[in-house]
Amino acid sequence: MRNFYCPDQPLTPDCTVELPAAESTHALRVLRLQAGDRLQLLNGSGIRAEAELLPPTNAGRRQQEAHCRIIAVEHCPEPAIALHLYIAPPRGKNMDAVLRTATELGVIRITPILCRYGVAKPENDKDSWQQTLIAACKQSGNPFQPAISPLQAFHDALAGHDATTGFFGAVPRDNDQPIQPGDLPSPHTVSLWIGPEGGFSLEEDEALRTAGLRALTIGPWILRVETAVPALLGALYGLLEH
Amino acid sequence: MRNFYCPDQPLTPDCTVELPAAESTHALRVLRLQAGDRLQLLNGSGIRAEAELLPPTNAGRRQQEAHCRIIAVEHCPEPAIALHLYIAPPRGKNMDAVLRTATELGVIRITPILCRYGVAKPENDKDSWQQTLIAACKQSGNPFQPAISPLQAFHDALAGHDATTGFFGAVPRDNDQPIQPGDLPSPHTVSLWIGPEGGFSLEEDEALRTAGLRALTIGPWILRVETAVPALLGALYGLLEH
Repeated sequence: MRNFYCPDQPLTPDCTVELPAAESTHALRVLRLQAGDRLQLLNGSGIRAEAELLPPTNAGRRQQEAHCRIIAVEHCPEPAIALHLYIAPPRGKNMDAVLRTATELGVIRITPILCRYGVAKPENDKDSWQQTLIAACKQSGNPFQPAISPLQAFHDALAGHDATTGFFGAVPRDNDQPIQPGDLPSPHTVSLWIGPEGGFSLEEDEALRTAGLRALTIGPWILRVETAVPALLGALYGLLEH
Repeated sequence: MRNFYCPDQPLTPDCTVELPAAESTHALRVLRLQAGDRLQLLNGSGIRAEAELLPPTNAGRRQQEAHCRIIAVEHCPEPAIALHLYIAPPRGKNMDAVLRTATELGVIRITPILCRYGVAKPENDKDSWQQTLIAACKQSGNPFQPAISPLQAFHDALAGHDATTGFFGAVPRDNDQPIQPGDLPSPHTVSLWIGPEGGFSLEEDEALRTAGLRALTIGPWILRVETAVPALLGALYGLLEH
C-alpha cells in the first residue's frame, strides 16, 4: 500500500481527511488512484492509518483534492532507543543521503553542527531538508519524522548534549578500549557525532572525550560520510540491540 | 599523499615503476605533479608503497608516462575477519554505491547473485565494477581490492557457501532469537547476504536458514540497498569486533 504524508489533520477512524495539495496531485494525477483504492497515511508523529479514497467532490475544478476516509489507525510505539545524530553537514546532495539514511535507521533528531574543518558555509535549507525527510518516511514506512535542530556551533551543541550515552566517529587511537556491549548501561537516548570530511579537530576530539563520549570506529579505512552514517548507526544497533 | 593504483609491477624499495596510462595522465596532466613530489601506490593486494616522482624521460612525446622510485614499502596485514558480501545487484548506479561502500568497509569478496525477486537481467559489467572498486580503494586507502565472483544463481551460490558464519538481511520474524555477541564463534570468514529490493523469497529465506545462516535486522523500517549494505556491515562490526 502506498504511503502518503498527512501531518496536520486528526487521523481517527471513520473521519474524512483531505490530503495536502502535493499528495493529492501525486495520488490522483501521477498514480491515478480511484475511489475505493486503499492508501496508508503517515502523520510523521507515530500514527499510521489505513484509508480509502473517496469519490471526487470537485471533479469540475482544475485542482483536485483527494479526500479519504480513515478505516483503521495504528499508534506505533516509539523506538526503544532515541537516537540523536549530530552531523557536520557535507556538501549538497550528500546531506540528502545522510537525511534519508538517518530516517530509514530510525534516528529521531538530527542536529547539524559547525566544526573547525567543516564546510565553511554549510547549506542550511531546513525546508528542503524537511522535504527529504518526508520522502524518506514515505519510502521507508517510518511513521516518526526525525526532528531537525537549528545549525549550532560544535561547542554549543556539546554543551547542550543530554543523551545518556554518546559516541563519535573517530580515527582509531592505540589506547582506545574496544567497546563491549556489556559496558553499556541500558540507554534511553544515544547520540552519534559524525565530523566533517576533514575529521574532528584534535581539540574537538578531546572535548568529546572529556564530555564522556566514546570513540567508535569501523575498520582502518577512510569512510565517506554516506558510508560512515549508516555503518556507525548499524554498529550501534549491533552493540545496543542484539 | 595521493593514492595511485599500480597492480602489475613488483613494488620493492629502490626499484622504478611506471604508472599505468590512466594513472600517469591523472598524475601529470590533472594534478600536474612534478619530479620530486611524493605519492602513494596501492597494488590492490595489500601493498602500500611510498614513491617519489622521477623527472620525465619522454618530454617530447605526446603521451607521457609517469615514472617513480619506490622509497618505502608496507605489507598491510590482511583483515582479521574475511567479509564476503553476496548481493542481488540493484539497478545501475546503486550497484556502484554498494561496491564503494563494501570497499570502504573492508569486504574482501563480492558475489552477485540472481534472486527470484531481483532485477531480471542485472548489469554484469565486471570491467566497470572493477573501475569502481579501484577508485574506492584509492579514495579510502584500502590496499586490498575486493574480488568479484561471477554472477551466480542463488542456489548455486548457497551450495558453494563456505564462510564459517553467515548472516542475511531479513525482515524480522517474531520467533527469531536476537544475536548475542557471545553466541558467535571467533570466525575467520563471515558472509553477509543482501537480497533484492523485493526481498528474498520465502523459499530463499528458508534455504538460508536451513544452511545455518542467521537473520540480521536493523530496526523495523524498509532500508534501501545503499543503506542496508553499510548498516548491516556496521552491525557485524559491532557484533564481532567490539
